[in-house]
This record gives sequence, structure tokens and C-alpha cells, in this order.
Amino acid sequence: MNRRQFTLGALTAIGWSTVAASQTPTQPRINGGRLNEHLSALAKFGKNPQGGVSRLAYSQADLRAREYVLGLMREAKLSVSVDAAGNLVGRRNGSAANLPFLSMGSHIDSVPDGGNYDGDVGSLGAIEVAQVLAESNTLLRHPLEVLIFQNEEGGLIGSSAIGRGLTDKDLNIVSRSGKTVRQGIQFIGGDPATASGVRRRRGDIAAYLELHIEQGGVLDAERIDIGVVEGIVGNNRWDIRVEGFANHAGTTPMNQRHDALLAAAKIVDAVNRVVTGLPGRQVGTVGRIEALPGAHNVIAGEVILGLDLRDLASEKIELVYQKIVAEARQIAKATGTTVHFKEVTVDLPAPTDPRIRQLVDDSSKELGLTTKLMPSGATHDAQVIAQIAPIGMIFVPSIAGVSHSPREYSRPEDITNGANVLLHTLLQLDRVASLDT
Amino acid sequence: MNRRQFTLGALTAIGWSTVAASQTPTQPRINGGRLNEHLSALAKFGKNPQGGVSRLAYSQADLRAREYVLGLMREAKLSVSVDAAGNLVGRRNGSAANLPFLSMGSHIDSVPDGGNYDGDVGSLGAIEVAQVLAESNTLLRHPLEVLIFQNEEGGLIGSSAIGRGLTDKDLNIVSRSGKTVRQGIQFIGGDPATASGVRRRRGDIAAYLELHIEQGGVLDAERIDIGVVEGIVGNNRWDIRVEGFANHAGTTPMNQRHDALLAAAKIVDAVNRVVTGLPGRQVGTVGRIEALPGAHNVIAGEVILGLDLRDLASEKIELVYQKIVAEARQIAKATGTTVHFKEVTVDLPAPTDPRIRQLVDDSSKELGLTTKLMPSGATHDAQVIAQIAPIGMIFVPSIAGVSHSPREYSRPEDITNGANVLLHTLLQLDRVASLDT
Repeated sequence: MNRRQFTLGALTAIGWSTVAASQTPTQPRINGGRLNEHLSALAKFGKNPQGGVSRLAYSQADLRAREYVLGLMREAKLSVSVDAAGNLVGRRNGSAANLPFLSMGSHIDSVPDGGNYDGDVGSLGAIEVAQVLAESNTLLRHPLEVLIFQNEEGGLIGSSAIGRGLTDKDLNIVSRSGKTVRQGIQFIGGDPATASGVRRRRGDIAAYLELHIEQGGVLDAERIDIGVVEGIVGNNRWDIRVEGFANHAGTTPMNQRHDALLAAAKIVDAVNRVVTGLPGRQVGTVGRIEALPGAHNVIAGEVILGLDLRDLASEKIELVYQKIVAEARQIAKATGTTVHFKEVTVDLPAPTDPRIRQLVDDSSKELGLTTKLMPSGATHDAQVIAQIAPIGMIFVPSIAGVSHSPREYSRPEDITNGANVLLHTLLQLDRVASLDT
Repeated sequence: MNRRQFTLGALTAIGWSTVAASQTPTQPRINGGRLNEHLSALAKFGKNPQGGVSRLAYSQADLRAREYVLGLMREAKLSVSVDAAGNLVGRRNGSAANLPFLSMGSHIDSVPDGGNYDGDVGSLGAIEVAQVLAESNTLLRHPLEVLIFQNEEGGLIGSSAIGRGLTDKDLNIVSRSGKTVRQGIQFIGGDPATASGVRRRRGDIAAYLELHIEQGGVLDAERIDIGVVEGIVGNNRWDIRVEGFANHAGTTPMNQRHDALLAAAKIVDAVNRVVTGLPGRQVGTVGRIEALPGAHNVIAGEVILGLDLRDLASEKIELVYQKIVAEARQIAKATGTTVHFKEVTVDLPAPTDPRIRQLVDDSSKELGLTTKLMPSGATHDAQVIAQIAPIGMIFVPSIAGVSHSPREYSRPEDITNGANVLLHTLLQLDRVASLDT
């Protein structure tokens, strides 16, 4: 990776774990009761009758939740603003001159029928860290920044504004609220005309930390307290179009068919076989299918499949993809159909900074917590910020791995643990980190 | 089958083929040029820019086409009426007293983006037969009847009114025109309040003949002139619901998934394997699939499949179904999903009367035409009429087997051949048939 490396400033000669250990006795702790109360309060904005929230970016619920969160940021003695891209920004000066920001954050928008933890835990966790620092009169060397990114669920929009800059194409996306991103930014108090100006450069942010629920079941199943995130997996998506010939389901003998749905079914099975047939943690999914004309009594003439492949290594994704293409060619030949792959999106893998990983792991262990090094299979705002700054991510367990669902749940004690790891990692970073500029 | 058998009346002692042969020299011929011109004229009602027609039952195009067809029936010296169920009925008296009708017919409504032959050929073929009989002053012993059934494509509605009677459930069906069947019957000049009264009883119709395009590619591929229909296959349909668990496509390891779409794909493949793995002409199709929530990045939690099985023998359909259920159980177990089968419709097989089959075959051969005994894989009005009368069906080739498509095509000479076979079969039936009452 072409990411710049940390240097240790004045503490270069001291090992990381030694530095961390030396700080432990004096470090403050976050107020877990308060943090979990704030989470409960936030859950009321966009609350669904069946539980969870539908707090789509740019909705009324989103707008009101942002006001609530701005209030929490002010209580944490942060100087708050809404940037031109609509992100909530809370800042506090550091003691040293001319150091870049130590930033933390996440998002508070949800998917339709989403849960109360995805994004919320990291957002309110970061604000809680800021509040504890204020209450304990802990002045960091670096300026501190809390970033609540707008519209994460609709494509990492707010973090992209900061990490890579928004384009007209981004602004024209129609979000699930029905508003375009441009209209949405206006709606939440940003200024679409100058939104491209919020883009940061390498050197603006010393490091970015994000606390998040795992959104998978690994930590819960293995009873581990903290996930030390290795990186956010790359995610490539394709539409696969299978063309056969629509014909009468009664009058067309079995050996005269060009059944696009039969071919598509064989491809879905092949995707699973290829993905599970290779060693490693890659995942592959066909979650979308559409058959035309789509009637009991008509052999499908055309089928569209949505293919999603993810891994920490782009090379592994490419290998899996090529094997799937080869299988699909064989299937097309055997079923008298044709198959076309069309790339839809490519998100490159975003590894976390190895030194921050180590600080997260050290901080966790000093707090008496167990850890596991793991990839993030889900996308996060951190992956866009990785384009301009070293990133670190801290995962807490999701019960049964349920996510994007009203049944999403993380225990209060796990959330408290995660926020403490966030706080302690931030404190360590403040002591050791400076960018090699 | 519990169908009453023909007796031969005065000609009981004479073999069927002998009877047929003895009539050949004096039999009239239909006017092929006129019949094909009428088909071209009918094609204008509901014509699509890209060819074919969208002449949905109860549409304006249907209404105008019915008026055109009523005119042709009048020209053929039929006494015409619209029955209370909205069927067009054209009649002419016979020479003998108290004999039941010899009936012929089909339908003129189409599927959306349908062709110009399905239904039209049999409808105008029957009218042409009536016209030739009138022009040649051929007086039948039996009263003659031409039936143009309304809304065949929407579920054999008009023929069901006659064959089994319409129920409130039928009348409440919302047709593809947007009108309910009740509203549709009103729209085309019937009377829904008394529509149940058009039901006929066994003995009312001596025999029913229907000329139709094959809607499959067998006759075309084998270069055969006439299909002698063995029967209309039974057609059972099910919805198969596969329940898994919707989860994140990135964070859920492959071995922790309950992927409903993967299970559904394996079932689609199993349906094909079971259907093609048994000897016989059975067909089985999954043409409909719906995956929920249906996004690239979510493992499908629920999938609905539409299963369609057809064969001339109900027992074969049951055997295939049971094998599919057994395979689905194994698939559910292997994929951590559950599978439910729900019966949607059951259309029992409707064999044609063996003696009429023989007459169709004899008539064809006397006309110098080649024949093939074959099932009808498609549904037809004849199958409902089979509940009250002996039926016979005559198929003519569909080029490349294309049907329910603007590309549907049958050659003018094949249509002329089919109408001649219809005419000659009718004449033979008139001489030999009386119902064993």
C-alpha cells in the first residue's frame, strides 16, 4: 500500500506496547451508562412499530436525530458546525501547534427497517470519548475531531466528500429518501454548490478511528470482546445477464428449451461452489434475481443476477471472478443460453494501519478484553478516509450476527468496552502519532 | 375416463375408416384464400407496432374484433347471438329432429404482445367451414354451432361458462384488461347476473371440434402437416416458498448462511433433473422466481418459485412432483432453509375421444396429409368442453414452435389444410355420431 507510515515523534525509540502500558493507570474511563442512555434516546428518531428504525438519510427522522446529536456534541464541549457536504463536525483544539486532527466518527442514518446500533454506536461512542476528555480536563496534543458522516447507507456519501471529494455524479444520485444527494445536502443544512470544498488532503488528519458493531456473528460465536479490524474488504459487484428464449412451458419439449432461469440457477450454484472451494475468508453472494417474463407458464427468456464478491485481497476477488466466468461459459454452452457479465461497482480493499491495529489490540488487552484480528466484510466510512489518512477500526460483538434488521443487537457492556478501547487508543495515538509529512 | 362413448347410430356396423373413405369424393373444400384474408383482417384489431397483437379480453380491440367476427358469422349464414357469458354463438339447424349440436370453435382474445394465429385460426377456420357448408348447400343432420369463447387467455373463462358454469369466484377474477370478469362480461354484451345459465349438460353437444396451431415446434421440426391431438395435458402449478435468513452479504461467513436463493437455485436445477430423468413426454418448468429482499448486498431470506408440471397422465405428474418434493427436502436440509409447496391450480388431463382422433387421422390422410398423434401441452377451450362432450382437436404447424409472441407464425397452406381436416371430420361426425343418451 502507498500509505505514509507513522513515525513516533519524540517517542520513536520506545516500543508501542511499552508506551501503552505506561499510560494505563492514569487513563480515564468512559461513562457506559450515559453512552447507552444516549443510544436509547437516539433510537426514538425514526422508530418503527416493530422495533428498530427507518432513519433514511435526508428524511425528517434523520434531520431531527442530527439536531439531537449536535446537542450531545455541544454538551461534550465540542465546537460544532455542519460542513458544506452536510457532515456534522465537532472540534476541540490541542495543546501543540500545527498538528493534524485526530478524528473519530461514524454515521447515524439507517437502512429501511434498520437497527439501533449500526453507525449509532460509533457516532455516540466518539462523542462520549470527547465528553470524557472534557470532563477529565484531558488536553490532547492534537486537535480532536468528531465526524458524523451523512448518508453512509446510501453509498458513503458524507465520508466520500471528505476522503475523495463529491462529483456531480454523486450529487445526482437519487437516495432512498426520494431526494437526490444534492437536494438532501440542502435539506440537512449543507451547501451542494460548495460541497466539493470539504475534501481533505493527506496530512489534514493524523489518524481516523471508528468504533462499529461487527455486523457479523464471529465475535459473538467465539465469545470475543473486541475485533481488531485488519481492513475493510474489497467489494466488486456485477450484473449477470442470462439470455435464453422465452417459450411456452407446456408445448416446448425439454430438449428444445433455452431456459434462462435453469442456466441462472446453475450459475448461482456455481458461485457458491467456487467461493467455498478455495481456501480463505472470501465471500460471494447472489442476492438479486429477476426472471422475464416471470410467469409459471412461460420458460424464462432472460434472467438478471446480482453477483457480490468480497475479500481483503483484490487478487482473490479476481481469481474467484475468473473461475465463475469460466463455469458460466460452460453452463451457457450446456443450456443453449448466452451469459454476459457487467461490472457494477468496485470498492478496493482498505487495510487498516498496522500500528493502529497494534494500539487497538494493546488498549483492549490492558482493559482486560479479549481480541481477534478480523476483516470487515461490510463497507464503512473509514474505507474512504483511508484514501487520505491512516485508519483504525474497533468492532464490538453483534448478537447472532444480525444486522440491517430491527433484530440487530449489541450488549450495553460490549458497547462500553468498545468505547473504552476507542478512548484509550486515541490517547495512545495522541502521544505517539505524527505524520511523516 | 367416465366419458360416454359414441354409438354409430344407423351406421353402427360400418367401420369408421370405411365410412370416411366412402364420403371423400363428394366432400367440399374450404376456400383457403378467403380464410387467410380473414385472418389478415382480424390481425388489425389490437395490432402492435412491432407486429402481432395485444388483444386482451375485454379491451376495446377485443370488442371491435368481436364485431368483425360476428359479421363473418352472419356472412356464413349462421344465426348469431351473444350468450349471457359473452361468448359469440352462431347456429344453423340440422335436418334431423332432436339431435344435439355439432360444435366447433376457439377464441380471438390474445395475451399481451401475442401473435396472429393462437385462437384466431380455429375461430375463423370454424366460420369458414360453416360458410363452405352454406355455399355448397350441405345440410347436416345435426344442428351446427360455432362458438367463439371469450377470454381464453385469462383462464378459459367463456368455455368454462359452458363446460362447468361460472362461479362468483370466476366473476371476481381481475383480468389483464384491468376489468373483473364480471365487468368484462358486461362490457362485451353479456349479462353477468345470468351468465351461470349458459352452462350446458351432457347430451347438449354431440361433439366439439377445435382447430388450433400447435404452439410447439414438433410438427414443424418433423415436417408433418397435421397433429392429431391425443389429449390436453394435465397442468398442475405450485408456488414453492424457500425460507432462509436474510443477512449481510459481506459479514456473514459462507458456512453461517441460510441462503434462500442458493437453495432455490438447487431446486430449479433439481426440477429439470427429475423431469428429464424419467422416460416420457412430461414437461416441468420454473418460470417465475422472486427473491427477497432482492439486493446485491443482502443474502436472500425468502424466495418464491413457480413450478409448472404437465403430462397426459395425472399419475406421471404426481410421480414427478413427489420426486421433486423429496429432492427439495434434501436441499433444505443441506442449506439450512425450509421449503413449502403450495398448490396453485390443478387442470386435469383431458383426453380427446379416440373415435374422433381416428376420424381426424382418416380425414387428413384422405386429403393427402401426413399426421402425428401428439399431446397438447397448452391449455385450450376444448379441455373444459371435454367435461360435457366428446372432443377432438386438430393441430397445424407453428414455425419454430414460437407462440404467445409477435413472431408466432403458421403458413397459409397449413391453415388451409387444417380447416379442410376440420370440415371433413365434421362431415364424418355428422354421418356417424349420436350420443349414447
